[in-house]
Amino acid sequence: MRKIGIPEIEDIALGAALLGAGGGGDPYIGKLMAIGAIRECGPVTLLDPSEVPDGALVVPIAMMGAPTVLIEKFLGGREYYTLHEMVRQFYGRDIFAFMPIEAGGVNSMLPFLAASKLGLPVVDTDGMGRAFPELQMVTFTMAGMDATPMALTDEKGNSVIFKTVTNKWTEELARSVTMSCGGAVSVSLYSMDGAVMKRYGVHGIVTRSEAIGKAIRTVKQGAGAPEGNFLNAVGGIRLFRGKITDVLREVRGAFNFGKVILEGIGEYKGHAAYTEFQNENLLASVDGSIIATVPDLICLVDTENFIPIPTDALKYGKRVMVIGLRCFEAWRSPVGLALVGPRYFGCDTDYIPVEIRVKGGAA
Amino acid sequence: MRKIGIPEIEDIALGAALLGAGGGGDPYIGKLMAIGAIRECGPVTLLDPSEVPDGALVVPIAMMGAPTVLIEKFLGGREYYTLHEMVRQFYGRDIFAFMPIEAGGVNSMLPFLAASKLGLPVVDTDGMGRAFPELQMVTFTMAGMDATPMALTDEKGNSVIFKTVTNKWTEELARSVTMSCGGAVSVSLYSMDGAVMKRYGVHGIVTRSEAIGKAIRTVKQGAGAPEGNFLNAVGGIRLFRGKITDVLREVRGAFNFGKVILEGIGEYKGHAAYTEFQNENLLASVDGSIIATVPDLICLVDTENFIPIPTDALKYGKRVMVIGLRCFEAWRSPVGLALVGPRYFGCDTDYIPVEIRVKGGAA
Repeated sequence: MRKIGIPEIEDIALGAALLGAGGGGDPYIGKLMAIGAIRECGPVTLLDPSEVPDGALVVPIAMMGAPTVLIEKFLGGREYYTLHEMVRQFYGRDIFAFMPIEAGGVNSMLPFLAASKLGLPVVDTDGMGRAFPELQMVTFTMAGMDATPMALTDEKGNSVIFKTVTNKWTEELARSVTMSCGGAVSVSLYSMDGAVMKRYGVHGIVTRSEAIGKAIRTVKQGAGAPEGNFLNAVGGIRLFRGKITDVLREVRGAFNFGKVILEGIGEYKGHAAYTEFQNENLLASVDGSIIATVPDLICLVDTENFIPIPTDALKYGKRVMVIGLRCFEAWRSPVGLALVGPRYFGCDTDYIPVEIRVKGGAA
Repeated sequence: MRKIGIPEIEDIALGAALLGAGGGGDPYIGKLMAIGAIRECGPVTLLDPSEVPDGALVVPIAMMGAPTVLIEKFLGGREYYTLHEMVRQFYGRDIFAFMPIEAGGVNSMLPFLAASKLGLPVVDTDGMGRAFPELQMVTFTMAGMDATPMALTDEKGNSVIFKTVTNKWTEELARSVTMSCGGAVSVSLYSMDGAVMKRYGVHGIVTRSEAIGKAIRTVKQGAGAPEGNFLNAVGGIRLFRGKITDVLREVRGAFNFGKVILEGIGEYKGHAAYTEFQNENLLASVDGSIIATVPDLICLVDTENFIPIPTDALKYGKRVMVIGLRCFEAWRSPVGLALVGPRYFGCDTDYIPVEIRVKGGAA
């Protein structure tokens, strides 16, 4: 148990943006919202998963939709009271704590915003250990858990409760409502007992985000080569370094699809690479060979300051380092890969762990 | 209080199809479903509104979406148990009776299907006295009532509860979910106390449907001119008689829009007319002059047997009589016309009651 105040929020937002793997939204927007709430209502208690009683109700809080919409359509602030009341009423018992459902610049922050306003703690766990574009893509789906009852509310005060036969149907129906509500809404789903959270959550994600954020912020002040220090601190594998020469974008369904073309710089001069994304980065290829795929994390960071660059901020001329991070172990199982493996996203390749790909090996 | 069995259902379905004003779905599908339930679970008690206690919970039952979808995607039958349980749980009290929300071949029938299965009565009232395409178009909206909490369920078992800030938002969000669920779902909305139902409902609508259905079925056997007898029995004004020479159709949003071109026959020979529809008929024009508009009912019936023809069954060569029926009086008020007047539907004309239009008069 420890307190999360404004300095911690700054680091968590920055680190979570890296774990967002290109998605999960702008950490600047996310942290502004969380900091606003903490200024008004005070710091938030962060609980280790082991500190949560087995029978306690733990409730994930997130936004659904396009994080970029938040730039124009800020969250109203009433949403979390509404979600809290909807969930409490549905289950007929009190909420013990909130938790994030994914890591990302925005969704790592919103549980702190909600927790500060409602005076509840946040648990140091989530359901992805990164960001993914669809809501059934959580460890809890692997555990056979239902996403529903799911509560959704918008800044105007509309609210919806879903109870669906599969988590894919939750995604389908909630996505429709999100689009009709203007593209970004607040949600609560996968509410669970402490026992389930302890067994299936990706633990320590907030603390890891904070450590990564701190590393990005301080690595250039340390001894030795900053890039090596950065890679060590985040546990990353360098895949490429290059200049963006083209970004192809397409909006399909409620998702941002795209491809980024890179021309090598430094020791990568003369080499070519590309990455593909659906909100999050899906695949990286160097000189015609795939070098990393989902569910491993593919992150593009600024070559100078290592700040993660979300897919929607990628543009011509930017110099980026592409890094790979090992995903949460359970995603590498057959059931994990069925949910979030490259083939689910339409990439015509089997999954091979990034640490094997970079050595030129097969699985 | 009286019993509604299979013969009554036959007449109600037929008469309600006329009051559907071109929309509201195929009475054949509607009656098949209701008859199936009555065969299995027995007849249904129809209550006069005055027989309902002021504090009793009265729950409208309907389908939302395109009635034509039901031809391929039948209702599963479990839906009404689900809706019943959702509404009961939300309000924390028992449901006293069901009621229809609109008149139409399908939506006049579904409350009987639900009532038969659940052993509850149906109240002889609805919220339109006809069919309209959008769910906020009910007398209860004029009374300032919220459509929500609204319960929605599909044949797969997905269910959703909406609570919205306006009834227009209910329409927007529920329509999105309906489309995602395949275009036709079962819903319950505008649940109300007996006192509200008694004050704002369109009373006697089931009995009126039954009388109209009986008239259509028997009018040719009576003395005198069948057409005159039919018009007297239904309270209709003849607007035109003609042969359909063209039907223009367009699907926009979740609605069927269209225009029907008519060439006069009999005493209308040499005259031309057209009707326009959005699911229901919106406007009729003869020789370039508008002769009827929403909210008055514009109905096309077969010239031989007076059977109402829904807009989706209109086709080249069919001989039809166009008739006008006065709408429920409250629709003619300024607040009623703001909800369902011609301008709401994009028709560039003020509302003038059909009985004045046919005399060539202005309002």
